[in-house]
Amino acid sequence: MTDDVLRRELFALPEGLVYLDGNSLGALPRAVEDRVRTVVTEEWGTGLIGSWNRPPSAGPGEGWIDLPARVARRLAPLLGAGADEIHVGESTSQALFATMVAASRLRPDRSVLVLDRTTFPTDAYVAQSVCRLLGLTLRWCDGPGDSPDGGVAAVEAALDDDVALVSLTHVDFRTGALWAMPEVTRVVQEAGALAQWDLCHSTGALEVDLAGSGADLAVGCTYKYLNAGPGSPAYTWVARRHHDDLDPPVAGWMGHTEPFAMRLDHTPRRGVGRLAVGTPPVLALSALDAALTVFDGVDMAAVRRASVALTEQFVAGVDTLARRHAEEQLSLASPRDPERRGSQVSLRHPHAYGLVQALVARGVVGDFRDPDIARFGFAPLYVSPADVDSALEALAAVLAGREHHDPRYAERHAVT
Amino acid sequence: MTDDVLRRELFALPEGLVYLDGNSLGALPRAVEDRVRTVVTEEWGTGLIGSWNRPPSAGPGEGWIDLPARVARRLAPLLGAGADEIHVGESTSQALFATMVAASRLRPDRSVLVLDRTTFPTDAYVAQSVCRLLGLTLRWCDGPGDSPDGGVAAVEAALDDDVALVSLTHVDFRTGALWAMPEVTRVVQEAGALAQWDLCHSTGALEVDLAGSGADLAVGCTYKYLNAGPGSPAYTWVARRHHDDLDPPVAGWMGHTEPFAMRLDHTPRRGVGRLAVGTPPVLALSALDAALTVFDGVDMAAVRRASVALTEQFVAGVDTLARRHAEEQLSLASPRDPERRGSQVSLRHPHAYGLVQALVARGVVGDFRDPDIARFGFAPLYVSPADVDSALEALAAVLAGREHHDPRYAERHAVT
Repeated sequence: MTDDVLRRELFALPEGLVYLDGNSLGALPRAVEDRVRTVVTEEWGTGLIGSWNRPPSAGPGEGWIDLPARVARRLAPLLGAGADEIHVGESTSQALFATMVAASRLRPDRSVLVLDRTTFPTDAYVAQSVCRLLGLTLRWCDGPGDSPDGGVAAVEAALDDDVALVSLTHVDFRTGALWAMPEVTRVVQEAGALAQWDLCHSTGALEVDLAGSGADLAVGCTYKYLNAGPGSPAYTWVARRHHDDLDPPVAGWMGHTEPFAMRLDHTPRRGVGRLAVGTPPVLALSALDAALTVFDGVDMAAVRRASVALTEQFVAGVDTLARRHAEEQLSLASPRDPERRGSQVSLRHPHAYGLVQALVARGVVGDFRDPDIARFGFAPLYVSPADVDSALEALAAVLAGREHHDPRYAERHAVT
Repeated sequence: MTDDVLRRELFALPEGLVYLDGNSLGALPRAVEDRVRTVVTEEWGTGLIGSWNRPPSAGPGEGWIDLPARVARRLAPLLGAGADEIHVGESTSQALFATMVAASRLRPDRSVLVLDRTTFPTDAYVAQSVCRLLGLTLRWCDGPGDSPDGGVAAVEAALDDDVALVSLTHVDFRTGALWAMPEVTRVVQEAGALAQWDLCHSTGALEVDLAGSGADLAVGCTYKYLNAGPGSPAYTWVARRHHDDLDPPVAGWMGHTEPFAMRLDHTPRRGVGRLAVGTPPVLALSALDAALTVFDGVDMAAVRRASVALTEQFVAGVDTLARRHAEEQLSLASPRDPERRGSQVSLRHPHAYGLVQALVARGVVGDFRDPDIARFGFAPLYVSPADVDSALEALAAVLAGREHHDPRYAERHAVT
């Protein structure tokens, strides 16, 4: 293990590009290119149906059917969890649906789900769907903002004896504000509720310690700091103590103890395996499996230290520019304390969309969130301190040249 | 359009292999190899986040965000449906869950779901899950077997005023028995229920005419006769007359009218678009988009004629062999009438597992289903009459040499 976590050579990033959007879509790990070619041409093209059990030139335990378990083993150290607690597959939305229903079934005498108002919209939509199906009530709490307690008081204010589950997005997608996971988990559980964490904007860039935090459930995507490609599969984590009682909403073929007995009655597998539903998405899981190799031998504490250094460097530079251009109403939307911030810095500006587009034109890629947020994600495996300097130089030039007021940027687009 | 639908040169099948397992995992279309390489290396690696709207070297309307709609346009002629009636994404299991809940919400005063006992297990598991969530009852009907009425009487026996939905697997995965879709749909609807078809084992090998049959809903996978690769995404079809009232169980980000407004309340898109849940699985959808190009200019009526000719040729050859080896208890498990049969021939034999393995050893790939079924699928785009001759020669040699009794085949495996 080394403190130097930068390994840009493992990524196929275009020469000269400063890519600060890994919090939306991670860069392409070179290992994925070879792996996907092998899966398509050799395993599918030549191995055909036999590759479910053993693809050509692969060893035992490397069949397509083993992919979810193999990916779980790779994810475990990034989550501070056991591989046997992790299910991989489906979309984040479906994973949230499954865990929210399962959580409410673990607390059958309680009828309230709590989410934070700053949650990612998907989480809100899925929670509303679950409440409608099960006759539950959705209650909102405040996000952590830049409060030094990391959101403990915000959550406490929403707790009572009727709360079954508190489901929070570990890092706020807009501002990068970071919940204090262990402390918040504790107050949630002291109220008899379950604590669930949406890790989409944290895993791969922060030190996540699910076991240490004592959490109950977690869900996350793999296409941001885990670099597994657009629309790659999500993962679900369930603390081992809940495995025997885990009761998901959709019983699937792959969650059956004996799928190939092809019986009409469903006997769920033990543990998180019962969360499996349909046939594993082999191309996507193979890409994910290969993508995670960039974390081989990487110390996540060192990743966090590098991330804090990068965001601090960026914040300091932005502060200087904001002072230089007092007329610009450029301000920090992220918490100033790096301990309360994920691996992302968000700026507020009335022309945030133009600001992002003008930076893209200069080879610095961040993204825009309605109405006035410019987001910059710092993936320490491929973003260097020199990249941050380049980004700040570009921002200085944009502001000096008022490039963000270009009429081409009047019409707004935003994506994932 | 021509009656010659054979285009094996478009597939990367190993030389000399007789692949009769396209009803489980379709062969690799060569177009997929190039397309996946482009998506990974150019669109993701170089285009990065910008490819959601417009990948490098792609035209307008070819962004990742447009993939579900593009694939829907390719699927439409294979389903006898409008592209605006088709949603692509998620697994078959999740698609079944969504349609079964939505169907029951279209018939709120009814409380029974009907499935056939010969259904694929996934359908049964999902229906049981839906019944439990919504307080409905699951009722079984018989399958069509080889009945000349294509299952009309079997379904009629299960209908009453309390049936909300009848969900049937168009082609029986074990025997290849084929429901009479238009006639069965009619009796279901005359009883006031909705008719749903699981097309996993038919689309791409049969002439499917959803509009002409008058059906209400349909679901299907794309990794069998549609050749989109292991675990590729499913599609959902909903008749246009139900679009305004369509109310799926999980409201997702991508099913929102304005996903990038990032609001906490959900306003569903019009039509089948509201079935969209999470971020589209771009690698898998791109592979599917490319895979479907093998159907360009292909007349599905000609595909069906070729399929019937191939299965008739195989059945006749098996009949001869069964007479020659009367001691073998080899019998036809599929309906003898090709009008009542999908693109698959299943044989029953006490050592069906050994039979399949011995054929695989001779380069003829079928598969085994517990306890005594050997299945052979005939994909007319890459299986020729000469392949059927080769398969019959191999079967003759296996039976003559009693190769299926090889002790290596005592332990059984089966996959997808």
